[in-house]
Amino acid sequence: MAVYTDISDAELEAFLAGYDLGAPLAFKGIAEGVENSNFLLETQKGRFLLTIYERRVRPEDLPFFLGFMEHLARAGFPSATPVPDRQGRLLGALRDKPAAIVTFLTGLSVRRPTAAHCLEAGEGLAWLHQAATGFGGRRENDLGRQAWPQLFAGLKDAAEQLKPGLAGAIQSDLDRIAAGWPKRLPEGLIHADYFPDNVFFREGRFAAAIDFYFAAWDALAYDIGVALNAWCFEPDGSFNVTAARAFVAGYERRRRLAPEEKGALPILAYGAAVRFFLTRLADWGQTPAGAMVRPKDPLEYERKIAVHRAGVALFEASA
Amino acid sequence: MAVYTDISDAELEAFLAGYDLGAPLAFKGIAEGVENSNFLLETQKGRFLLTIYERRVRPEDLPFFLGFMEHLARAGFPSATPVPDRQGRLLGALRDKPAAIVTFLTGLSVRRPTAAHCLEAGEGLAWLHQAATGFGGRRENDLGRQAWPQLFAGLKDAAEQLKPGLAGAIQSDLDRIAAGWPKRLPEGLIHADYFPDNVFFREGRFAAAIDFYFAAWDALAYDIGVALNAWCFEPDGSFNVTAARAFVAGYERRRRLAPEEKGALPILAYGAAVRFFLTRLADWGQTPAGAMVRPKDPLEYERKIAVHRAGVALFEASA
Repeated sequence: MAVYTDISDAELEAFLAGYDLGAPLAFKGIAEGVENSNFLLETQKGRFLLTIYERRVRPEDLPFFLGFMEHLARAGFPSATPVPDRQGRLLGALRDKPAAIVTFLTGLSVRRPTAAHCLEAGEGLAWLHQAATGFGGRRENDLGRQAWPQLFAGLKDAAEQLKPGLAGAIQSDLDRIAAGWPKRLPEGLIHADYFPDNVFFREGRFAAAIDFYFAAWDALAYDIGVALNAWCFEPDGSFNVTAARAFVAGYERRRRLAPEEKGALPILAYGAAVRFFLTRLADWGQTPAGAMVRPKDPLEYERKIAVHRAGVALFEASA
Repeated sequence: MAVYTDISDAELEAFLAGYDLGAPLAFKGIAEGVENSNFLLETQKGRFLLTIYERRVRPEDLPFFLGFMEHLARAGFPSATPVPDRQGRLLGALRDKPAAIVTFLTGLSVRRPTAAHCLEAGEGLAWLHQAATGFGGRRENDLGRQAWPQLFAGLKDAAEQLKPGLAGAIQSDLDRIAAGWPKRLPEGLIHADYFPDNVFFREGRFAAAIDFYFAAWDALAYDIGVALNAWCFEPDGSFNVTAARAFVAGYERRRRLAPEEKGALPILAYGAAVRFFLTRLADWGQTPAGAMVRPKDPLEYERKIAVHRAGVALFEASA
């Protein structure tokens, strides 16, 4: 949740003058998106989301993200569509920060996903992967597998401070992950942050995905690994294999996984758990005052790593 | 801005089951209202605001506030209308806190009101006062003139800490205000917090008033005094007499002020400045961590008191 930048009516009017959206009818800061300031904007032309990009998102990546969202929408995938200004530009500026207007999506995210939600969410992710094909833009995954050792190098002390012995454990996780990481899996553009709060449902059905600001080129099955961590752990820390199988079954409604992709899911999820642990650890205690954000607990992901470390058996019966 | 309580999809569904509003289509925490948690709620029946009452608002006052809002809406005044549940109740509970659903209002509040906005806002306030007549509910103004000496008694040290010499100055303000306070002005139900962020405009015209959680019985002209402080000071601390006269002129489009009301405006505004200084001083440094609220600077109102102390001449030419 975040509203970092407070925009006045006069600033909003000046910004909207560059768009063909008519006069503003309502404008409210909303508690959505950790990295950016988001506003519900209603004009004579409809309802929109105005986003001001605050941090982490590199301005030079924004044309890729907005272009990707535009591509997905044109391909029929239910995601927010960037609205061009009168000059056809998707990216503008507000208070000297990058800003964009996208269409407003209805739907509710779920706090505690059931296996039924996982089935729907899995299908939505495969749909996203298919809709992404043909987009000309590229972006390396700067939080992908290659980046983790260096990211960890700067966080060893913080890990040890969080929990004695943790630095050594994570080092050994990274060694195992590097040794076992699959090669030559099918690649494409992935969401890379497909968490329950980035997926909307309407009446129990997948309705939309939002927040494409980590999207990058990587193994498609790695996106499933990220999602299994986010969707299939119980509040008590246990891994819900039924939910995980439902997620994968939903995915395969749209796109069949190759046997090597299925077999790689446990290590992909293991690596993804380390990736989110590391970035949460980096953010821990670094949230600026007044940011209206609660930093996410890195220990949640430390517990998920421990589950993967012990071994998660997903498909041994069917494999 | 505040979102204190985070509501899950399951809690929302359970709450909405008591209402005849259909399934939720969107639900977003919004940065509006300092005292409560507010959510934009879209259902199959339309758009609404869901409010969870967090603090300051006394639960026993809520039936009065909600009844007053219902009365205003029935009288044709543009304010949010409370939505009854299936049993006809305006007040429910969410997470063991009082909660209510009201209709969603379009319109934008202005950050820096012009004299033209003041004219419109003044007319809106008189409209509110007229629409309020006939409501059977009563609520004493527990932050009215009688309450200030006692409120100040607990804040003398804080005032002195804020600015050496301030405690003595405020004491003398209170003495002057007590001596000069008008008696027998026309009374009624007042908004008591008619600030620019509680007034919506559409295309420059008054569109609606929100946030009735300080409404109480008091002198009607005192409501103008509160508003003059909130609407008619420039960022440099100077009092804009043109804006103030516009506010009063707008008010008189709907309701003529008696000469004794007009003559009392300077001291009513002087007292209102002390009232907001005192409550801001009480809140200063007391905002709970994680409340996503920036406490308002009491010194802003200390500067307004100083202007009134020196004397604000509003109508000497015409009086």
